[in-house]
Amino acid sequence: MTTSARRAPARVPQEERSRAMRSRLLVATVECLVEHGWAGTSTTLVSQRAGVSRGAQLHHFPTKNDLVLAAVEHVTLAREDDLVGLVRAGAGRTRAVLAALAELYTGPLFTAALELWVAARTDPALHEAVVELEARVGRDAHRRTVEALGIDEAAPGNRELVQATLDLVRGLGLATTLTDDAGRRAHILDRWAAVLDAELVRPEGVLP
Amino acid sequence: MTTSARRAPARVPQEERSRAMRSRLLVATVECLVEHGWAGTSTTLVSQRAGVSRGAQLHHFPTKNDLVLAAVEHVTLAREDDLVGLVRAGAGRTRAVLAALAELYTGPLFTAALELWVAARTDPALHEAVVELEARVGRDAHRRTVEALGIDEAAPGNRELVQATLDLVRGLGLATTLTDDAGRRAHILDRWAAVLDAELVRPEGVLP
Repeated sequence: MTTSARRAPARVPQEERSRAMRSRLLVATVECLVEHGWAGTSTTLVSQRAGVSRGAQLHHFPTKNDLVLAAVEHVTLAREDDLVGLVRAGAGRTRAVLAALAELYTGPLFTAALELWVAARTDPALHEAVVELEARVGRDAHRRTVEALGIDEAAPGNRELVQATLDLVRGLGLATTLTDDAGRRAHILDRWAAVLDAELVRPEGVLP
Repeated sequence: MTTSARRAPARVPQEERSRAMRSRLLVATVECLVEHGWAGTSTTLVSQRAGVSRGAQLHHFPTKNDLVLAAVEHVTLAREDDLVGLVRAGAGRTRAVLAALAELYTGPLFTAALELWVAARTDPALHEAVVELEARVGRDAHRRTVEALGIDEAAPGNRELVQATLDLVRGLGLATTLTDDAGRRAHILDRWAAVLDAELVRPEGVLP
């Protein structure tokens, strides 16, 4: 993104510049939320950080709510793609899926999403949009986790174990926003991986 | 508490009145955080809600941070006492412990604590106090959960399963602040209770 921003503007087609600008705004929004929290994040601050004019920012995202909702959705889907998508079948597969999920739920993106969730709790207009966003993003995370684990979701008890896994990493993520205890987290995930390998129903002959 | 507040003040000894006032302030603080969030909670609002004079409130809790930290600690310890302490040995014990924990982590107290955690993330002075408070409250929750499950924590893998259980209910609590999906939660906890009964190491001859 930095490279593309440094290119002579005349050489970059309008559409590509617009996409790069949008992307810079979304990344800057997540950074702002992590550093300054919901109350300390403003569209002005984000525009400055992204190096995007106020007019262009308002064109892409008219309000702070628009900007934050788009940022959390865009970055979440991109990160889920990156991480869970990389896991391959073989020994240690379950633990690798858990490591990828934990990375996703203990990083800056989770912190930004947490600021959004908490703000939405006491803001009815924002609440509706966040519930809808979370349903979409949650379904995506669930589907990718099922794929990454290589399991059949219809087998009895599998769905609940995948949901429990996502709730577990969300809980770990919340604890991490206060103190990052990676050692504690690793032990819990080791044990959780052993539980999943013992309890998940897999197609016959298919190993983790 | 309401009853005690309605008694003729002259008949109530000073110490008892002071304790009742303190308790009303702490309960009102949790209610304010749930309704208005961190930013919308002020010591003035809490005093009004508790029916306590500004002077008395300042005497008990000089700052908003003092008030909120005391409220979250006081109410958490009292609730843990109430809930997990009631679980008895016998069939369905594990599921009953999970139900008690889920009630604790999906109620108003969790919401108030969440507002405090998120505020503390970007406020260094508050952060230090919250990390210390969470360590204390977390140890208490862990100890009570071990007792309620009737397990030996030193048996291999048990500690991690208890920690995972507490992280799981924290994750469920976070999801509940947006949408209260009690049905989804019940299925996950049913499955998790079965996993715990299969995976927890119990002393020989001791059933859940």
